[in-house]
Amino acid sequence: MKVVIVGGGAGGMSTASNIRRLDKDAEITVITRDENVAYSPCAIPYVLSGKISSFDDIIMKTPEDYKEVNIDVLIKSEVTAVDSSKKTVTYENADGEKTIDYDKLVLATGGNPFVPPMEGVDLEGVFQIRNIEDGRKVQQWAKTSKSAVVTGAGLIGIEIVFALKELGLNVTLSEMMPQIVPRSLDSDMADILTGYLKMENIHVMLGEPITKLEGEDGKVKKAYFGDGSCIDADMVILATGVRPELELAKMAGCDIGRWAILVNEKMETSVEDVYALGDCVESQDLILQANTISHLGTTAVRESKTLARTITGKKSNFNPVLNAMVSKVGKLEFGAVGLTSSFAQQNNIKPIVEKVEALTRARYYPNAKPMDIKIICDCNGRIIGCQIIAEERVAERIDTMTLAITQGLSCFELSNVEFAYAPPVSMVTDPLVLAVEEVSKKFN
Amino acid sequence: MKVVIVGGGAGGMSTASNIRRLDKDAEITVITRDENVAYSPCAIPYVLSGKISSFDDIIMKTPEDYKEVNIDVLIKSEVTAVDSSKKTVTYENADGEKTIDYDKLVLATGGNPFVPPMEGVDLEGVFQIRNIEDGRKVQQWAKTSKSAVVTGAGLIGIEIVFALKELGLNVTLSEMMPQIVPRSLDSDMADILTGYLKMENIHVMLGEPITKLEGEDGKVKKAYFGDGSCIDADMVILATGVRPELELAKMAGCDIGRWAILVNEKMETSVEDVYALGDCVESQDLILQANTISHLGTTAVRESKTLARTITGKKSNFNPVLNAMVSKVGKLEFGAVGLTSSFAQQNNIKPIVEKVEALTRARYYPNAKPMDIKIICDCNGRIIGCQIIAEERVAERIDTMTLAITQGLSCFELSNVEFAYAPPVSMVTDPLVLAVEEVSKKFN
Ligand SMILES: Cc1cc2nc3c(=O)[nH]c(=O)nc-3n(C[C@H](O)[C@H](O)[C@H](O)COP(=O)(O)OP(=O)(O)OC[C@H]3O[C@@H](n4cnc5c(N)ncnc54)[C@H](O)[C@@H]3O)c2cc1C
Ligand SMILES: Cc1cc2nc3c(=O)[nH]c(=O)nc-3n(C[C@H](O)[C@H](O)[C@H](O)COP(=O)(O)OP(=O)(O)OC[C@H]3O[C@@H](n4cnc5c(N)ncnc54)[C@H](O)[C@@H]3O)c2cc1C
Repeated sequence: MKVVIVGGGAGGMSTASNIRRLDKDAEITVITRDENVAYSPCAIPYVLSGKISSFDDIIMKTPEDYKEVNIDVLIKSEVTAVDSSKKTVTYENADGEKTIDYDKLVLATGGNPFVPPMEGVDLEGVFQIRNIEDGRKVQQWAKTSKSAVVTGAGLIGIEIVFALKELGLNVTLSEMMPQIVPRSLDSDMADILTGYLKMENIHVMLGEPITKLEGEDGKVKKAYFGDGSCIDADMVILATGVRPELELAKMAGCDIGRWAILVNEKMETSVEDVYALGDCVESQDLILQANTISHLGTTAVRESKTLARTITGKKSNFNPVLNAMVSKVGKLEFGAVGLTSSFAQQNNIKPIVEKVEALTRARYYPNAKPMDIKIICDCNGRIIGCQIIAEERVAERIDTMTLAITQGLSCFELSNVEFAYAPPVSMVTDPLVLAVEEVSKKFN
Repeated sequence: MKVVIVGGGAGGMSTASNIRRLDKDAEITVITRDENVAYSPCAIPYVLSGKISSFDDIIMKTPEDYKEVNIDVLIKSEVTAVDSSKKTVTYENADGEKTIDYDKLVLATGGNPFVPPMEGVDLEGVFQIRNIEDGRKVQQWAKTSKSAVVTGAGLIGIEIVFALKELGLNVTLSEMMPQIVPRSLDSDMADILTGYLKMENIHVMLGEPITKLEGEDGKVKKAYFGDGSCIDADMVILATGVRPELELAKMAGCDIGRWAILVNEKMETSVEDVYALGDCVESQDLILQANTISHLGTTAVRESKTLARTITGKKSNFNPVLNAMVSKVGKLEFGAVGLTSSFAQQNNIKPIVEKVEALTRARYYPNAKPMDIKIICDCNGRIIGCQIIAEERVAERIDTMTLAITQGLSCFELSNVEFAYAPPVSMVTDPLVLAVEEVSKKFN
């Protein structure tokens, strides 16, 4: 079996490794435009900030490592054509153009950063962050910069702006929407995070898009906002989201949904022997039972397990997603899973919500930190979302809530579940239980 | 409605507060032998070690605070008799003896530390740790001691021995069984913890009971072991478990099980209008569907919610327990839930187990710590136990596993569940998922 995988990101490389684990004989070729494979883009902000000492550290494996398990990785190679009737793929690299056959084709083409339509985006000093090369350029440019503007206050924007602040730059985070992290947090929770960013000397501009960038000698110098104000910017980072890369999928004749490639729960596209995963596909939203986008490394990795089983003839279904996410900026950890209350409303679900402030340890234990928890239920009490912010112990609580939501638990049911306790690590009634107990009261 | 509660520990005081929340008019009286109520015995080791500065800090509420919500708390008062036909309770305190009526009686009498039969237990310098008064005595005695022996290597024993070590004493932890924490950890996991304790200069004696304590001028000086060896001991702590306090329950005519008072899922004893909870009752084991003992503050607190609802005429069932526990000694956090593999075997369940070593953060992220995880499944792959040891992020993972076990998930099912990821807080495939994936392979 000849498997050709386009894209050497989390989706492509995990698929290759997982197929190899299940099938010793498959001929596996990964073709990718990038120079590096098997690194974690998620780590780029932490290299920028200096927490991780070098970009080389985040590269987990080289093409040679893959060679050892008999996986061919062609780097710096652009796939330019797919013919799904002839079952061929054409790619170009320094050696010229070549067309190869496949039995199974995997599209793991990821996405490209969205470039908002604004004057001046072509100036030097304007960056996107998608891969290590982008990271290196930003790192280099930052060395001679005094000020930076990051536009787009999703996870990546926030991590990057914090990293640049830690490098000593004067930084501004600009977001078109009236709050940060609009996809994952409700505004009351986002405000807590905004307060922290401001305290850390990050200038936050909400509800104003950047309209124009202005330069000097071809280098960016100023950013102008909708309200006419203007700010110094020796560098600008566009963190305004990712647009799935769909060219090859279209060429292959795959059905495309509202945002990305359509796949079924086996990760099959509409075209026989063509599969897709990662940032270039649509997922099912567990709660809305409708298509959604899940631009998460975790999603790509889980999908790769299903895809590898499908290709090797084994059974596996990829489950609908809840988009559980977590991040840490400075001292603050924040995470979310499921629907925000505003997103629920937009989808005609009347959310019943409660927000509590608990502590990360027993009240009397030194360094107990406040923990803000928001719980969102539907009108039957079924938990449909959770958001948490604290200086510690957020990530795993999000995981517990992900499991609770996956299992369809109500707030009443979760308030009866056992939680472990010791004074240095929790409260005798866990913060999550306090939160679900509070929201339960709204149903009396 | 006149409610009389015997015992001012976690069980008694939580019951009082929860009844008050549900019923503004109930007459609630708590009678307790102790001087302090509403403190956390769980915090005693951390006051001893100096982490928490004083015993006063761990007292959350005084009798006067309860008075404000119209709960009468009689301290230093011993209940000496219960008459469940006349529905009266007799108690004695400095003011003499008094008999009062009840409509509903709650037995929250907890337990007494088990004193192993050995010569010399009456010497000065031999302590048990159950309440603040015990804690103060130990703190005082430790000031003039050079060496200490703690016997019994359950949670409390380990926390206490570590605390005394932090005070600078030469300490020995002695356990009759061939491993520490036999109730919650399998020996391979216990060995990791033992290794850490030894590294921290705690002398660990396994498989040897103390046979005799020897004193000078009535004060303990030496402890002798089964193998004839002997060790200096200016103080000895008996941490050999708790025996439920059953006197009053017997007087009331309540059915007693193998270990403690029998209650149903409403927390009713066999005697009408007599209820019981906490360390003095038996619980149901979720996996074995048999009675068990759950000497945990968390269990008492959860039981109090059901009990309060029962007494006020509301519906609520107390669920079977998994005895989820967690502790932190020095840098190491350890936790467990469900059955150990050896306990499963003893109960004729053939355990399928796997132990993995993962990391608490992405491999390349600074200060990623090893995390040891053991998963125990039954022969159908259903998860029945989990044990985790690491320097961080253990407690909430235990909670996630508690929820998974409560929901009856198999290792196959859990390996498909979503987990949140960011490099500073987890691995792209969560340690728990790695562990359940590994154990899943044993079913192929
Ligand atoms: C800065 C940053 C931080 C992040 N943080 C987190 C986090 O903390 N947690 C989390 O879960 N996720 C995080 N993510 C998201 C996560 O990294 C992505 O969801 C994941 O990388 C998607 O993997 P993929 O394989 O689908 O796409 P990609 O990683 O984008 O890989 C696609 C690959 O396909 C190649 N390609 C595309 N078209 C062609 C072609 N025609 N020919 C050859 N090659 C082609 C691309 O060059 C690329 O190498 C972060 C992302 C970024 C950028
Ligand atoms: C050192 C230590 C550390 C612990 N750590 C943890 C931990 O980290 N996590 C956890 O979940 N659990 C922990 N526990 C266990 C937890 O504290 C107990 O499970 C919990 O206190 C039980 O509550 P209770 O109300 O049933 O009993 P108790 O707290 O023992 O209260 C019983 C009360 O009844 C009184 N009483 C009994 N008989 C009479 C009578 N005849 N008249 C008047 N009064 C009477 C007693 O004096 C006592 O005040 C720890 C316990 C100890 C001792």
